[in-house]
Amino acid sequence: MKIVRVHYQYKTFYAALEDGLLRCLTPQIGITERFPLEQAQLLPLVTPSKVVCVGLNYKDHAAELGMPLPEEPMFFLKPPSCIINTGQPIYLPPQSTRVDYEAELAIIIGREARFLAPHAVPEYIFGYTCANDVTARDLQKSDGMFGRCKGFDTFLPIGPWLETNIPDPSDLTVKLYKNDQLMQQGHTSDMLFSPFELIADISHVMTLLPGDVILTGTPHGVGPIQEGDEIQVEIKGVGTLINPVKKFTQQQDAAGLPVQ
Amino acid sequence: MKIVRVHYQYKTFYAALEDGLLRCLTPQIGITERFPLEQAQLLPLVTPSKVVCVGLNYKDHAAELGMPLPEEPMFFLKPPSCIINTGQPIYLPPQSTRVDYEAELAIIIGREARFLAPHAVPEYIFGYTCANDVTARDLQKSDGMFGRCKGFDTFLPIGPWLETNIPDPSDLTVKLYKNDQLMQQGHTSDMLFSPFELIADISHVMTLLPGDVILTGTPHGVGPIQEGDEIQVEIKGVGTLINPVKKFTQQQDAAGLPVQ
Repeated sequence: MKIVRVHYQYKTFYAALEDGLLRCLTPQIGITERFPLEQAQLLPLVTPSKVVCVGLNYKDHAAELGMPLPEEPMFFLKPPSCIINTGQPIYLPPQSTRVDYEAELAIIIGREARFLAPHAVPEYIFGYTCANDVTARDLQKSDGMFGRCKGFDTFLPIGPWLETNIPDPSDLTVKLYKNDQLMQQGHTSDMLFSPFELIADISHVMTLLPGDVILTGTPHGVGPIQEGDEIQVEIKGVGTLINPVKKFTQQQDAAGLPVQ
Repeated sequence: MKIVRVHYQYKTFYAALEDGLLRCLTPQIGITERFPLEQAQLLPLVTPSKVVCVGLNYKDHAAELGMPLPEEPMFFLKPPSCIINTGQPIYLPPQSTRVDYEAELAIIIGREARFLAPHAVPEYIFGYTCANDVTARDLQKSDGMFGRCKGFDTFLPIGPWLETNIPDPSDLTVKLYKNDQLMQQGHTSDMLFSPFELIADISHVMTLLPGDVILTGTPHGVGPIQEGDEIQVEIKGVGTLINPVKKFTQQQDAAGLPVQ
């Protein structure tokens, strides 16, 4: 099932996408008829309590960054405020001169989880989607900490929907196209730590909550994005996430807050 | 005003602490009488969308870690799932053999904030409190990323209350006692970047939301905690945060979730 979160008829809810029509998954709120996707406002898929990202989880990506392979999963966080949807622009911030794309498989948690063994993880997964872990590479190198380089508003496109029917998340091809040119191609079977191992490991550190997002790492081929680019993350069986790249100006900020 | 978040008479709300009694700050929910603190269940002060922490913000702490002084604020995130209250135990996780305390001034955001100048920051602050940025120092060194070493459940005590009346956050003494022995003493005037500069800088990266927590860095004197220790973070004019240290066993986990 493909699931999106939408605003429609003054209500916010999850809906299933079926033959181009949306069906409200909580019809008791009074939305019982099916309606076209175009009539709804698409919202970010989730509003997580946290986004946990795994570093260096593909051998060839660690090699291209010149980093040693980790013996255990290594992770960092992105703030939920950086999440955007398919179709929304990634803004290049003035603090950076080198912003990179990173295509990733994202997993959305469905139930509170702690101390999981890998074999128990599937019961705790709500669904899968595509993600782009946008990164200011220059600031990553200069800061050493990831709060800034990974945390700018718009630096986490996820979508286009949540796919709940994935028989094996270790059998997916992750591709990234920049302006229709293939830039990244990896297979999730090449991960150092499988999706279920990652989530089990994270659950031994922190309590995972419904809606939390896990990014599973990016394969080799990361590279820069520029104003005017269009970036597509494609995972066959999941979907395609498409985002234009724009130069940041304060007028274009989504929140529309004035400079103080 | 001292503010706490409590559960009382089946309701969850913010209350002012006045002469040992609590006064509900939203009396329209039906709680109009004052009542003793002991009758309420104290909850974590905030449920933030994110916790932003600043690294190496005191010159003498950077020196003790052997790190160069940053030219700009450097930051990382802790997951909201690691927040506990005063009185609750910090659990030492089995993955680490060296867990350190780090006393810090914490600031709670009151209004959505983006692109602030330092002079505008005070209008966006809800209040101040004490925090302990508990850190698995061995994992910090081995991982290089801060998601795990800073992210264990119970690794962020904050409290004992939110103090809204702080005339100058750059004129506060931050102390930490381990079993009544003074281990850290710093003054917020010694920060490399002042609280208002930090928040302005972060707001140029990401949208801050009400309830978000900013940790302003720790002074020199960090050191290990052991089972049986009692750690006190004291900021005069703000309050004292007290947490016992326990060895983690799965039976003692707050969530009480079984191993899968």
